[in-house]
Amino acid sequence: MKSKTEIKNQIMDAVDTVKRTNPMAGSITNAVTVNFVANAQLAIGGSAAMVYLPEESELLAKIGGAFYINIGTLLPLHGQSLPIAAKTLHTSGKPWVLDPVAVGIGSLRSSILLQLKSFMPSIIRGNASEIIALAGLWGLEGNGRSNVRGVDSTDPVGAARAAAVALSRWTSGAVAVSGETDLVTDGLIVAFSHGGSHFMGRITGAGCSLGGVSAVYLTAATPFIAALTATAVYNLAGRRAEQRAEGPGSFQIRFLDELYKATAADIADNPFEIEEA
Amino acid sequence: MKSKTEIKNQIMDAVDTVKRTNPMAGSITNAVTVNFVANAQLAIGGSAAMVYLPEESELLAKIGGAFYINIGTLLPLHGQSLPIAAKTLHTSGKPWVLDPVAVGIGSLRSSILLQLKSFMPSIIRGNASEIIALAGLWGLEGNGRSNVRGVDSTDPVGAARAAAVALSRWTSGAVAVSGETDLVTDGLIVAFSHGGSHFMGRITGAGCSLGGVSAVYLTAATPFIAALTATAVYNLAGRRAEQRAEGPGSFQIRFLDELYKATAADIADNPFEIEEA
Amino acid sequence: MKSKTEIKNQIMDAVDTVKRTNPMAGSITNAVTVNFVANAQLAIGGSAAMVYLPEESELLAKIGGAFYINIGTLLPLHGQSLPIAAKTLHTSGKPWVLDPVAVGIGSLRSSILLQLKSFMPSIIRGNASEIIALAGLWGLEGNGRSNVRGVDSTDPVGAARAAAVALSRWTSGAVAVSGETDLVTDGLIVAFSHGGSHFMGRITGAGCSLGGVSAVYLTAATPFIAALTATAVYNLAGRRAEQRAEGPGSFQIRFLDELYKATAADIADNPFEIEEA
Repeated sequence: MKSKTEIKNQIMDAVDTVKRTNPMAGSITNAVTVNFVANAQLAIGGSAAMVYLPEESELLAKIGGAFYINIGTLLPLHGQSLPIAAKTLHTSGKPWVLDPVAVGIGSLRSSILLQLKSFMPSIIRGNASEIIALAGLWGLEGNGRSNVRGVDSTDPVGAARAAAVALSRWTSGAVAVSGETDLVTDGLIVAFSHGGSHFMGRITGAGCSLGGVSAVYLTAATPFIAALTATAVYNLAGRRAEQRAEGPGSFQIRFLDELYKATAADIADNPFEIEEA
Repeated sequence: MKSKTEIKNQIMDAVDTVKRTNPMAGSITNAVTVNFVANAQLAIGGSAAMVYLPEESELLAKIGGAFYINIGTLLPLHGQSLPIAAKTLHTSGKPWVLDPVAVGIGSLRSSILLQLKSFMPSIIRGNASEIIALAGLWGLEGNGRSNVRGVDSTDPVGAARAAAVALSRWTSGAVAVSGETDLVTDGLIVAFSHGGSHFMGRITGAGCSLGGVSAVYLTAATPFIAALTATAVYNLAGRRAEQRAEGPGSFQIRFLDELYKATAADIADNPFEIEEA
Repeated sequence: MKSKTEIKNQIMDAVDTVKRTNPMAGSITNAVTVNFVANAQLAIGGSAAMVYLPEESELLAKIGGAFYINIGTLLPLHGQSLPIAAKTLHTSGKPWVLDPVAVGIGSLRSSILLQLKSFMPSIIRGNASEIIALAGLWGLEGNGRSNVRGVDSTDPVGAARAAAVALSRWTSGAVAVSGETDLVTDGLIVAFSHGGSHFMGRITGAGCSLGGVSAVYLTAATPFIAALTATAVYNLAGRRAEQRAEGPGSFQIRFLDELYKATAADIADNPFEIEEA
């Protein structure tokens, strides 16, 4: 197992590479939080581009260094665009993030997620209920009975550990489970990252933008390091933003500021523990 | 007629119930302000979820405690999704809010609104021009000749009183008319709520998010109380936010903060008068 | 050639007319930044309305004083709506702004842009790479080989001068090229406008909202003056917002505040130089 020092050095490398190279990660993401996703990607030093059309999804998958797929607010068109993007990414060896928002709600969502299974997302990011439900839908672990309520999780992070490990072993990538303490695993190591703010549940888009930011770091690091780096900067920025926020409005703004200000060393020093999976 | 004391107690109950239970109100709403709607719903203690597809609209209508329908930026798909959502809500006895944005612009908008008439929205929310135009379109009052200009009202609130009363008597629900002084009626009582800020006309989404917040309160109160509670917290938060805002940017942020901070007693104490309809 | 004094007086007239008359400029624009576009239009004193449907695009083109077309996140529907809107605007003599975001990415984007050529946008706004690529696509200047990378420019503003002049001579309108120093031309005069902030590249929507604001000023000024006024208020507000911003979150908010606070004299006094094209 890697040491914490090795991991911290790799986190610093990922952060600095992104700040230096301004890498572009394209997205197909939901209408509610698309602006916040793009602004978060820009705040950490990346570049953003969002598309809907199948042809443009394929092109953007090829152009960018990584990609973010969020199935939040599906249109019929996404039934074509999402599988084409994922297939293109897989075929061309481009890393990508899957955010299985509200998995279990509706037949198109399930149909798309089943198609995406074979295209091996480098990072799967969700709350505990979504990770449990996806592992079940993909037949990898458990029966998939989670407590998804719209977009909210009603399961604790620890309950998703087996599902997260199973998913990461399937993809040979990483899985990040958001909650009070966040869990990140690549099937070998399980990391627990601390921080954040209660306000992150009082704004829309904290999870989606974490997915988008993970995609930016994927241009510069392995799935495990990218997911852990994104989780760490969110925990750090959330904790710092809360100190000076009066409510969810000012929290959001300060959060973007803190994403921007966080240095490589700050992010690597955000508290986390590791253990074997 | 209810006394002001009774009304204030019911407002406090609605606010506290929402803060305690974190109820979910789904939405089909416009692309311009969807993020602000969700953030406002979260700020007062609710939960948000937005959809486009007909099947998902039906599912979300059943899952949530209430629903918000805003016809602002129509896609062809909304021609199916909106009637299905409204029918499901009506059939299953779930309360819902209708925001007839820009009623009168385009044939799909009129066609959808005509179909929604029989599904009895619990709350109809709009500016004076929209309320007058909807009452006319539904053949309930007047000739519907209002002065809708895109999304802006050019009629004063008082001019929409008869239309608001007629609509609320048709639905057996409530109607909220936004303006300098806001009018809320259930066909028996007319309430006038005071406060707000001139900045609310200088940001996009003040009206839409009021509709979304009304839907959250509908999970915990009658249509009249839900509409009056939402209107009161908007007037309170608007007045407070303006005191420390330098422009529409900082106003928006402080407004979300004040929505979050407002207590049940604060909201119930926001100035209003009542009279018979 | 006009004198700087004449130009400054016309800028002041445009600003004051907008503040006094609250003109409405409709938009068909992308999903990522649509909220920021509307808020910027409102902040300077205008009114906003966004649509998707072909029929509504035609209606809104007729109702508004000017229009903004941004091709950022295309849906198949835009293949109909955008040409109908542009044709209606051209036929009815309404001024409009074209923002050829990510020109060159995908066949629908190219097909739409080729159709729009004959409808003579009053203002074309883009970064240097987009302006070069559009002039090439329209066969007006150069070979169109620019360095478009998703939505980012990789060419300096000066490299787009010949393309901007050629485009403005074709349309008999104006072209605005965004960059460190912004270039605005009507084919006779080239103006260089100074100011802005490095944060404008760290938020999403600075360019799009500049297009939307240009459309508002088009209701009250010639294309050249409208484009230069919009560019000047952006440079002014950007410089002022940066002074008190801690990062891209607070920058965005202060930027909207400064758009709102900028007076006609402030905007006219923002530094610029002119020379013959």
